[in-house]
Amino acid sequence: MQTIISERQGIAQIVTLNRPQQRNAISLQMVDELLQQLELAEQDPALRALVLRGSGGNFCAGGDIGDMLTAQQSAADGDSDAFYRLNRRFGELLQQFNRTPLVVIAVLDGAVMGGGFGLACTADIAIATGNTKFALPETRLGLPPAQIAPFVVRRVGLSQARRLALSGATVDAQLALAIGLVHQVVDGQDGLEQAVESQLQAIRACAPNALATTKQILLASANLPGDEELSMVLDQGAQAFAAAIQSHEGREGARAFVEKRAAEWQS
Amino acid sequence: MQTIISERQGIAQIVTLNRPQQRNAISLQMVDELLQQLELAEQDPALRALVLRGSGGNFCAGGDIGDMLTAQQSAADGDSDAFYRLNRRFGELLQQFNRTPLVVIAVLDGAVMGGGFGLACTADIAIATGNTKFALPETRLGLPPAQIAPFVVRRVGLSQARRLALSGATVDAQLALAIGLVHQVVDGQDGLEQAVESQLQAIRACAPNALATTKQILLASANLPGDEELSMVLDQGAQAFAAAIQSHEGREGARAFVEKRAAEWQS
Amino acid sequence: MQTIISERQGIAQIVTLNRPQQRNAISLQMVDELLQQLELAEQDPALRALVLRGSGGNFCAGGDIGDMLTAQQSAADGDSDAFYRLNRRFGELLQQFNRTPLVVIAVLDGAVMGGGFGLACTADIAIATGNTKFALPETRLGLPPAQIAPFVVRRVGLSQARRLALSGATVDAQLALAIGLVHQVVDGQDGLEQAVESQLQAIRACAPNALATTKQILLASANLPGDEELSMVLDQGAQAFAAAIQSHEGREGARAFVEKRAAEWQS
Repeated sequence: MQTIISERQGIAQIVTLNRPQQRNAISLQMVDELLQQLELAEQDPALRALVLRGSGGNFCAGGDIGDMLTAQQSAADGDSDAFYRLNRRFGELLQQFNRTPLVVIAVLDGAVMGGGFGLACTADIAIATGNTKFALPETRLGLPPAQIAPFVVRRVGLSQARRLALSGATVDAQLALAIGLVHQVVDGQDGLEQAVESQLQAIRACAPNALATTKQILLASANLPGDEELSMVLDQGAQAFAAAIQSHEGREGARAFVEKRAAEWQS
Repeated sequence: MQTIISERQGIAQIVTLNRPQQRNAISLQMVDELLQQLELAEQDPALRALVLRGSGGNFCAGGDIGDMLTAQQSAADGDSDAFYRLNRRFGELLQQFNRTPLVVIAVLDGAVMGGGFGLACTADIAIATGNTKFALPETRLGLPPAQIAPFVVRRVGLSQARRLALSGATVDAQLALAIGLVHQVVDGQDGLEQAVESQLQAIRACAPNALATTKQILLASANLPGDEELSMVLDQGAQAFAAAIQSHEGREGARAFVEKRAAEWQS
Repeated sequence: MQTIISERQGIAQIVTLNRPQQRNAISLQMVDELLQQLELAEQDPALRALVLRGSGGNFCAGGDIGDMLTAQQSAADGDSDAFYRLNRRFGELLQQFNRTPLVVIAVLDGAVMGGGFGLACTADIAIATGNTKFALPETRLGLPPAQIAPFVVRRVGLSQARRLALSGATVDAQLALAIGLVHQVVDGQDGLEQAVESQLQAIRACAPNALATTKQILLASANLPGDEELSMVLDQGAQAFAAAIQSHEGREGARAFVEKRAAEWQS
């Protein structure tokens, strides 16, 4: 891997965007490497979480200009789909990180812009330093934040998304907290490390399969248009509950509770 | 009734979860008694609101362990659906309290956990003391908060729901206010009584049928996927408006407004 | 035009509700004039924004009583659809202002009630003075806020909408900011003018077609029920992106960025 660093740390895979000279701009190669790492992590039964962070004081400043030039050349050479594929591939990255059964923790600092903003919106838990700046500057370049916008709407709601995307406004960490873009704002690098460790400790107390099932139910619960769809999710939920409580995990959870001891997954 | 206390107070039915030794954990019997009380209250034309509260300093700490053991025995005896039915029945409680035409006020204090958290999410107006603690601890027991999660997502949005359900984090009253889980935080028991009285006074100024129609429109307005569905809700809304303004209530409202007097429903 | 004032100011059309004696209550004539102005503004390629404000210290106090009396007479004369049409026509106003490709800025002060509340909810950017008061008083008159409720739910979420509509509560500017009803609270008239100018300056930096495309994607992104619908929006988004980056605007944006100069749309 050339654009990211990935390392195992207990129940979590730590994935660091590592193009500090480009403020970790997401290139096509980085998309491929991130998706590859995600797939590997999902196949590892010992992993419950994926921590996503950036090197060199920024999370991610957006898309990569080199890829744009390459696509421009391809388009000039007659490949009419070059820009479509480039853009849609980035949307695929956001979709996969959004729906992974792993708990995704985004560790934010410095620039969180464009595609980086979108990636942050796919995390289950987002922590930012007070120095973090968020923005969707696409329209200033004559472009729509096309793959990013749907994830921003899901994250902060339509009202805030309209305001941010249609004015290119910069959002600081406190406003990001107020609108639900991040869940915690901390002081500097030390605060960041402590907060990540504290979140991982909370996740260590939670049973792996129960986490994955819960995330699936949460994602299925978003935007249910009517009572019928709600009932369907509740029916499936009750089946998942019945399976969980009769599984090894459910039995161990009940025993640990009665015996007032840590469950076996709490290491 | 053995698990709840239910009493009429003007336009409101006050329903108190009353298993203080179990921090008002919701048993199957309590589910049945709550649904029975709700049905009775809905049939009483003089009632506009239902106030839901807990005895002994807690709202509700979750599900009942006794029911779990019973279901376990049933499952061991070959009743493969026992856990499914138990879980789904609780979801039925949440659905009915969510869609009742009565205005539901949740009065929160102490523990609001698991199923209690879900029940609080079905209220139209939620008031909490500064001592209230909210949490979804299910995954620590190896279980998904299967019936609860969809109501949490509707209440606080997907971003906050993912964070809370996937880390088991405890939420205090101020954070609950910030994320829209509750609408008002008050100081102690006196503050709670005053806030409930003040909310009921506001509801007394509102016409009973207009409240029920409005609640129906609000619930139908959630998560409309497109313009077509929005237009349908607006069409039905215009029909409901035309019916209301030509009804006894609508005429009385207009007359009271012109005559600068309280309407007849304002007692 | 008799009920509104409309004037061009650079990239923005400034539309002022102008029935100060009636606190700018929205009459049927005002609905017609607003829709006419919106249509004209949408056809003007030099316009990117529409600023909506009220004269005389209030934004808008709701619907017009005169129209109600006229509809009542029509109904008495046998026109059974009179109230339906009156109400639905107002919903049409909200739908058109919600989906216009122009960036809508609502400038709020004084009363923002009933229909005025609904209209404010259709804006992309909402700015309010500290003196602004929001309320949905319909149910106190025996009526449902039938056309308004769906836009309130989209704006502030179901939890806050239920509480506001079912108690008729008055919301001050700070609470409006906290629940996402407005995006900025300013001090007095001077603060208001500066904030509008600052928002327009931000929009001037954004390319016109990119803004319109982005708004379309944002609106299409709301309430997507499942992964399939999300993928469809992302597919269309990638097509829009590919078209934008190869358009005159996209090329100019890239050139301006490389040459470190303002783009041609930034006047």
